[in-house]
Amino acid sequence: MPTLVHYPLDPASRLIRLMCAEYGVPLDVEEVRPWLRDENLLELNPAATLPILFGDADTPIVGIMASIHAVEDFYTPTAVQGLFPADPYVRAEMWRLVEWVLIKLNDEVTRYLLEEKIAKRDQRGATPEPSVLRAAKANLGEHMLYFNWLLASRNWLAGDDMSLADFALAAHLSTLDYMGDIDWSKSPESRDWYARLKSRPAFRTLLNDRVVAMPPSKGYADLDF
Amino acid sequence: MPTLVHYPLDPASRLIRLMCAEYGVPLDVEEVRPWLRDENLLELNPAATLPILFGDADTPIVGIMASIHAVEDFYTPTAVQGLFPADPYVRAEMWRLVEWVLIKLNDEVTRYLLEEKIAKRDQRGATPEPSVLRAAKANLGEHMLYFNWLLASRNWLAGDDMSLADFALAAHLSTLDYMGDIDWSKSPESRDWYARLKSRPAFRTLLNDRVVAMPPSKGYADLDF
Repeated sequence: MPTLVHYPLDPASRLIRLMCAEYGVPLDVEEVRPWLRDENLLELNPAATLPILFGDADTPIVGIMASIHAVEDFYTPTAVQGLFPADPYVRAEMWRLVEWVLIKLNDEVTRYLLEEKIAKRDQRGATPEPSVLRAAKANLGEHMLYFNWLLASRNWLAGDDMSLADFALAAHLSTLDYMGDIDWSKSPESRDWYARLKSRPAFRTLLNDRVVAMPPSKGYADLDF
Repeated sequence: MPTLVHYPLDPASRLIRLMCAEYGVPLDVEEVRPWLRDENLLELNPAATLPILFGDADTPIVGIMASIHAVEDFYTPTAVQGLFPADPYVRAEMWRLVEWVLIKLNDEVTRYLLEEKIAKRDQRGATPEPSVLRAAKANLGEHMLYFNWLLASRNWLAGDDMSLADFALAAHLSTLDYMGDIDWSKSPESRDWYARLKSRPAFRTLLNDRVVAMPPSKGYADLDF
């Protein structure tokens, strides 16, 4: 069985967990906290990023881009529709939005909130910096406006069909939602879209996640939130 | 003929120019300065990032991930060997290093040097901030050590054969080299590797680039540097 080295709230790890669940690939997981830069992690990945996927060989598949392509190559689904649109222009739109989420949203929002709220719990005496939290949440507001605008005219993020772009965004928003950073009442279009994703069987694994001494926000695991 | 909306020193744009040149795809280019956030650019790409590729249709292909996949899908070479290794584990190693360059190297080095040295030329009275330049150059030193270490035991960055990882790194290093930020005498392994890439016909287009009022560093266009 493939094994994923992950952290439960790491959005890149969540994206691979979602992909595997959607494609019916059973997955063992091994938890690490990448900000501790443990020697074993650095040996697998000197960049100290997650996820790291072990397929059926002993060779690690390192990072989100390699993992996405490995899941797609090794475990191409036959029973369900895949997450890569067949039309090349829709696929380009999917990659545009995957890049938006993995680079821009992460860079302007997710990584700051994870650093302040989660990683700092492992630094004695450190507390979240209010100005950083404020800036990240203001940035999140702008991103949500864009996603709402897209989803007002589209069934799914990249077009008519569900794609990897939806899973990438859901992976990030689910982490932010766990930490209580999303006000869904201000984002009706994104809320409707997220409710549809959340009720998929693939999502169950994420909704059961619990971080020690930090319960999820109210509504995190509710399908009707 | 496909058209690339690019900036000459933007490393992501350079990667697509290199790919197209290697694959024998003629390319028209249209220059923009993305930091000016021109309305026409924002309409094409609200993230204001480059490159943007117009293939044979009028639909823009936006961003580096979409462009890489579009070039590979639309213009798969038949006369030359492609840049995606056939072995899935070598391909995973390629993606690991492409991610390293596009995200980590960009985030820790290239984007700061471009912002300070290039984008600030368009802000009246702004000058490069010495502490930022120093930090970025110190980070670059660490990255070069890692690339030297990899290239001491490998023919090309991801293994025995040239791949997209080599082009991604060469795109970034060529921009840094233009600005005079690389001390090749300290990086013999990377220098040997870069000399091999630089002498490929695909590289010629980059070596002819000139930015107004900012000539390239000595050695930038020399094949024997």
